[in-house]
Amino acid sequence: MSKKELNIGLVGYGFMGRTHSNAFRQAPQFFDLPYKPVMKAVSARNADKAQKFADNWGWESVETDWKKLIERDDIDLIDIASPNDTHAEIAIAAAKAGKMVMCEKPLGRTAEEAKKMVDAVEEAGVANMVWYNYRRVPAVTMLKDLIDEGRFGRIFHYRSQFLQDWTISTDLPVGGEGLWRLDASISGSGVTGDLLAHNIDMALWLNGPIVEVSAATETFIKERKDTATGEKKTITIDDASAFIGRFENGSLALFEATRYARGHKALFTLEINGEKASASWDLHDLHHLQYFDYKNEGKLRGWTDIQMTDGDHPYMKNWWVPGLQIGYEHTFIHQVADFLTGLGSGKPAAPSFRDGLATEYVTDAVLKSAQTRKWEPVETA
Amino acid sequence: MSKKELNIGLVGYGFMGRTHSNAFRQAPQFFDLPYKPVMKAVSARNADKAQKFADNWGWESVETDWKKLIERDDIDLIDIASPNDTHAEIAIAAAKAGKMVMCEKPLGRTAEEAKKMVDAVEEAGVANMVWYNYRRVPAVTMLKDLIDEGRFGRIFHYRSQFLQDWTISTDLPVGGEGLWRLDASISGSGVTGDLLAHNIDMALWLNGPIVEVSAATETFIKERKDTATGEKKTITIDDASAFIGRFENGSLALFEATRYARGHKALFTLEINGEKASASWDLHDLHHLQYFDYKNEGKLRGWTDIQMTDGDHPYMKNWWVPGLQIGYEHTFIHQVADFLTGLGSGKPAAPSFRDGLATEYVTDAVLKSAQTRKWEPVETA
Amino acid sequence: MSKKELNIGLVGYGFMGRTHSNAFRQAPQFFDLPYKPVMKAVSARNADKAQKFADNWGWESVETDWKKLIERDDIDLIDIASPNDTHAEIAIAAAKAGKMVMCEKPLGRTAEEAKKMVDAVEEAGVANMVWYNYRRVPAVTMLKDLIDEGRFGRIFHYRSQFLQDWTISTDLPVGGEGLWRLDASISGSGVTGDLLAHNIDMALWLNGPIVEVSAATETFIKERKDTATGEKKTITIDDASAFIGRFENGSLALFEATRYARGHKALFTLEINGEKASASWDLHDLHHLQYFDYKNEGKLRGWTDIQMTDGDHPYMKNWWVPGLQIGYEHTFIHQVADFLTGLGSGKPAAPSFRDGLATEYVTDAVLKSAQTRKWEPVETA
Amino acid sequence: MSKKELNIGLVGYGFMGRTHSNAFRQAPQFFDLPYKPVMKAVSARNADKAQKFADNWGWESVETDWKKLIERDDIDLIDIASPNDTHAEIAIAAAKAGKMVMCEKPLGRTAEEAKKMVDAVEEAGVANMVWYNYRRVPAVTMLKDLIDEGRFGRIFHYRSQFLQDWTISTDLPVGGEGLWRLDASISGSGVTGDLLAHNIDMALWLNGPIVEVSAATETFIKERKDTATGEKKTITIDDASAFIGRFENGSLALFEATRYARGHKALFTLEINGEKASASWDLHDLHHLQYFDYKNEGKLRGWTDIQMTDGDHPYMKNWWVPGLQIGYEHTFIHQVADFLTGLGSGKPAAPSFRDGLATEYVTDAVLKSAQTRKWEPVETA
Repeated sequence: MSKKELNIGLVGYGFMGRTHSNAFRQAPQFFDLPYKPVMKAVSARNADKAQKFADNWGWESVETDWKKLIERDDIDLIDIASPNDTHAEIAIAAAKAGKMVMCEKPLGRTAEEAKKMVDAVEEAGVANMVWYNYRRVPAVTMLKDLIDEGRFGRIFHYRSQFLQDWTISTDLPVGGEGLWRLDASISGSGVTGDLLAHNIDMALWLNGPIVEVSAATETFIKERKDTATGEKKTITIDDASAFIGRFENGSLALFEATRYARGHKALFTLEINGEKASASWDLHDLHHLQYFDYKNEGKLRGWTDIQMTDGDHPYMKNWWVPGLQIGYEHTFIHQVADFLTGLGSGKPAAPSFRDGLATEYVTDAVLKSAQTRKWEPVETA
Repeated sequence: MSKKELNIGLVGYGFMGRTHSNAFRQAPQFFDLPYKPVMKAVSARNADKAQKFADNWGWESVETDWKKLIERDDIDLIDIASPNDTHAEIAIAAAKAGKMVMCEKPLGRTAEEAKKMVDAVEEAGVANMVWYNYRRVPAVTMLKDLIDEGRFGRIFHYRSQFLQDWTISTDLPVGGEGLWRLDASISGSGVTGDLLAHNIDMALWLNGPIVEVSAATETFIKERKDTATGEKKTITIDDASAFIGRFENGSLALFEATRYARGHKALFTLEINGEKASASWDLHDLHHLQYFDYKNEGKLRGWTDIQMTDGDHPYMKNWWVPGLQIGYEHTFIHQVADFLTGLGSGKPAAPSFRDGLATEYVTDAVLKSAQTRKWEPVETA
Repeated sequence: MSKKELNIGLVGYGFMGRTHSNAFRQAPQFFDLPYKPVMKAVSARNADKAQKFADNWGWESVETDWKKLIERDDIDLIDIASPNDTHAEIAIAAAKAGKMVMCEKPLGRTAEEAKKMVDAVEEAGVANMVWYNYRRVPAVTMLKDLIDEGRFGRIFHYRSQFLQDWTISTDLPVGGEGLWRLDASISGSGVTGDLLAHNIDMALWLNGPIVEVSAATETFIKERKDTATGEKKTITIDDASAFIGRFENGSLALFEATRYARGHKALFTLEINGEKASASWDLHDLHHLQYFDYKNEGKLRGWTDIQMTDGDHPYMKNWWVPGLQIGYEHTFIHQVADFLTGLGSGKPAAPSFRDGLATEYVTDAVLKSAQTRKWEPVETA
Repeated sequence: MSKKELNIGLVGYGFMGRTHSNAFRQAPQFFDLPYKPVMKAVSARNADKAQKFADNWGWESVETDWKKLIERDDIDLIDIASPNDTHAEIAIAAAKAGKMVMCEKPLGRTAEEAKKMVDAVEEAGVANMVWYNYRRVPAVTMLKDLIDEGRFGRIFHYRSQFLQDWTISTDLPVGGEGLWRLDASISGSGVTGDLLAHNIDMALWLNGPIVEVSAATETFIKERKDTATGEKKTITIDDASAFIGRFENGSLALFEATRYARGHKALFTLEINGEKASASWDLHDLHHLQYFDYKNEGKLRGWTDIQMTDGDHPYMKNWWVPGLQIGYEHTFIHQVADFLTGLGSGKPAAPSFRDGLATEYVTDAVLKSAQTRKWEPVETA
């Protein structure tokens, strides 16, 4: 095994720390990669928890200060999986230290923050990627190919939703593990940055730039108990966010994200309607793509349920045999595989930090439009 | 309107009397037919109920003895919608009187009875048809076309179910309106003649003759209160019936009908697997056909959900516009339309009494095999 | 038969003339009604076509001028099924003549027109109804009951779509039968009045008033050949229309209608998310209601597919037996049944002209917002 | 980490070698287990390929003779993932050497072989398990719980299918990697042992013993080219296998497996109908369970689609968050977790070799019945 090693330092051991760790561990068994990812160190403030996490996942060492991690010579890449308010500072420091950077989404809490991160990695010339993992669902990847092959013709509509229901209870407190997402000072925003950002990243990739939006947001529950203080605290995040808009290609946009759609756990959907074809997909059954092709024989036309488990579907020849589904975690494994393959070939895999910034220009415009109650243009990344 | 009139006399005013009456009333508005069906008379023993039924549906007159109906010169066609034990006698008498005959399925309680009915109509040379209405679901009709066009290649499998759940309660009595179906002396059999007969008729039409079967039947509830006497009565019908078998074309058969499948109301399903294509359909969503075509491009292959509401789908240009579904009753309307069109063109529409007999040879073999516990050959109609 | 007769005069023999005619013919056989609808006369400019239509459907006589129809003493009710630009004049004249009025939707081409129609029927004190037929889909009617029973709690979201694809071809001309819908001078608007109006009527009924909207419309194909002149004509209708908005009850609205969603024929959908339950429905499988109830046992919670064919589902005991579906045309039959029942009981069935006006205040606000690019308030009917 | 280590020796590096290797690697990160599985050695005849496999998956060493593997003192457990004709000899030798044994299904090529394997492990008193992995699909595991809780009442029907389509081409040769499955001398049988065995194992677990069967098998393609010799070879496996039967609890069985169902890749389905409830599941969307509960309110009754991704669903709290699906490979990981947990607690996890034998008594009866064309009783394991 003469493979080059790529030494990784992870910041954060929450939910995203787990998905990234698993991805680094699993990618090499399933994909033939030019680099061998070495799980060198994990950093987190709580030393005991960090050690336990490291033992579980096979991280070789532990740091309790991410700055130490960045200082270490034996680390090539900093992977950021800590809360949103830490992304910018860590990423910028890592870039300045010449490390490659992978960052959990959203890139920054605002486009302003994200812009600084883009500048840092581009100035440093280091490889960089944002974990918009859902681009690597085989159904979504194939949809991108189908669009690029010109199978849809002129696009009329693109719509996308992300529906959850986990914050409906008024008893749910704000702050602490998992619940920092309800605190705008840490998360930047509510569902707009947490969920809608996924919808937007995928949309920009598949259907090109969004040029303007008119949005509405809602905070259904205005006060929650603070986990730390036990006091009532005013909630400033958006519980729901919806917008209409226009893509540069002339198609109409309709987007919505919420944590108040009873009965939906992680219903991320998309549908694209073109002159010649339409397609739809959702995360609850991520291994299916629905496809309608107008060129098919008239009486037999319909929506085809493509089960994305064949060897000629993206990524799937690396897994099992036709009919056997993969799941959520595999999207992260694909992302690691593509990142390492990109490194080896000199063709960086998307989405880069700059791609992540493009998404934030849209989320910023959405949040602004909801405030101004006007159509807002979207800046270009 | 110089259309020829066809005078109809209906026997029976139960559930099937309603569906037939509606079909005769509705067909002329939606289909351009060579004959105008005239609802001349309905016959039933209870004069009051018969009159009420006639008033509701527009039958011009009432008889309380079906023999009178047959004697009438102003009746061209006798339509039999009374319980199974009356079919043979009425049909044979009608044929002898030179009347055309339409008969609700199953044709007779046994193949022996059905054979006599076939002989009668063929000797008399009168037009005849059995109400296996489900052949006229547009999805099923189109499937027949697709098979005839050779799109499936060699057939490997054909399977079909009819699942209901309405007799699970032990409190349900036997006998009387609707419940004569639990009394084998009237119905002939249980689900084999009532439900499985539909599966078989459709299978013979789509996939050709069945040559042998090995069957099992069950009577889950062995005693019920007799509606008439209030006494306990031994139940002799089959509550469930299943068989494996072979078609003449070499494909394997798998059939099942039951009234004990909790959660299913009228789940009539079929699936056919050929070398080049497969298709499936079910009655609960009768306006869909699922179709898989192997010749489609590999990565896009899948089951296509064909919504059978377009103008190029069988019967559908006569109804509404694309996207708007039709329902159960329309299959009877199509049958009337096809029967009258067949009369006009001299090409009788199937299924004839002889076709109905073919089904009974299979149901008889099924019931026999369940008794003998042996493979039983199927006679040829 | 001592039933009172209600003499009907129909204006128009297009697609809607057929659905109304069928409804008047069919309702009495399936519902026990206090009035017997008598199909007295149909009015249309082309005498031959009108006669043919009358013969087919059983209209007793023909008029070629709707004014004559209104003058006739033997007509109790004028039913308007002609193009949108004729609704107001006919309805107002009919009301002034003391006739009951039923009118195909949308009521007028604008709220201004519709307001005059409301004033006319209310001043005349005549029974009136708009044919928003989809309220009478059993699944939708039951959903209304479930909401009224308080099963949903606080409502967070209501979204609805109407997706079609029949005008994508640039070769489709404008004007003439069916295609007057592409001519805004006749139709009033494009999909906003034709499709979105259905979504809105249902939403107002189920979820209460909409108070403000921000909308976007698109005309994807700007010129078409005029059917009459053969010349190029500028298209002024909206091909697609989408809006975000707020209901009076605080829930967020997301609506969209288009004729450019390849693969969808008449995909009218709705979803409502409440604190305690959610439900969704679509027209392509109108006999299903999807329901999620949070109070169910945790590990067994999910979306329940309710097959709306049981006797305890609205309207269904009047049709066939469980498992057997009804279709599109039945919604019109239900509307006739409810209208006549309402007449008999003195409790008029909705939607009245005033209800129809409420919908037009929303569609007007949508069209205005699309022009002004501002949030627009909705007037109260 | 004071955890006890369990040293594993794997035989075979084909498809099943991959799934097992992945399971041993992944289980410890996601489940808190009393033993740490150590991937000590893999054995396969081809040293190069074995080494490559070992490097990829992290097996510490390589043997080219499974007998050597069994002789090694540093091996606690022999895991058999080699072709079916090798199972018995290896398992018996391993048991005699006092090793624990895990064996890929089917246990032996015949019940006779399997019986000897059961005797060997039981005499040796070593822990043993068969890899009927699908019992560990969360939906299936929960279904077992629901049945054990008495939620179904008396059972009327149990049916199950396994439909594939990968051997339809006549060009597919017989023999060699993957294709030894078409050679009965190695595989024991065709779909009966390969696919139907899964259906049966799950059925016996969920619904108890099967007492008798009447079966039919087919070999659709009678000759294929031999991969080794290039000559035509007569095919002796069953391409399709179907049976009707009876469970000890009185319910009717209907089973079918085939590799000739065009359009289905690995459609393993089951449905159980009880007096009080029904449930169904299929492998193509393994993260769903369909459940119908008769005790629910009448008008709201229907099939509930339970998305098996919540923390209170079996195994799922160990994975991600609600809404995010797992896939095929996870069933093997669960099996490792349960095996190790069973070892720790002294309560062995099923299915044991004896459970595997019970399935083979059924498959043997099926194959025999297909030959004798008689109902055949099933022996008791």
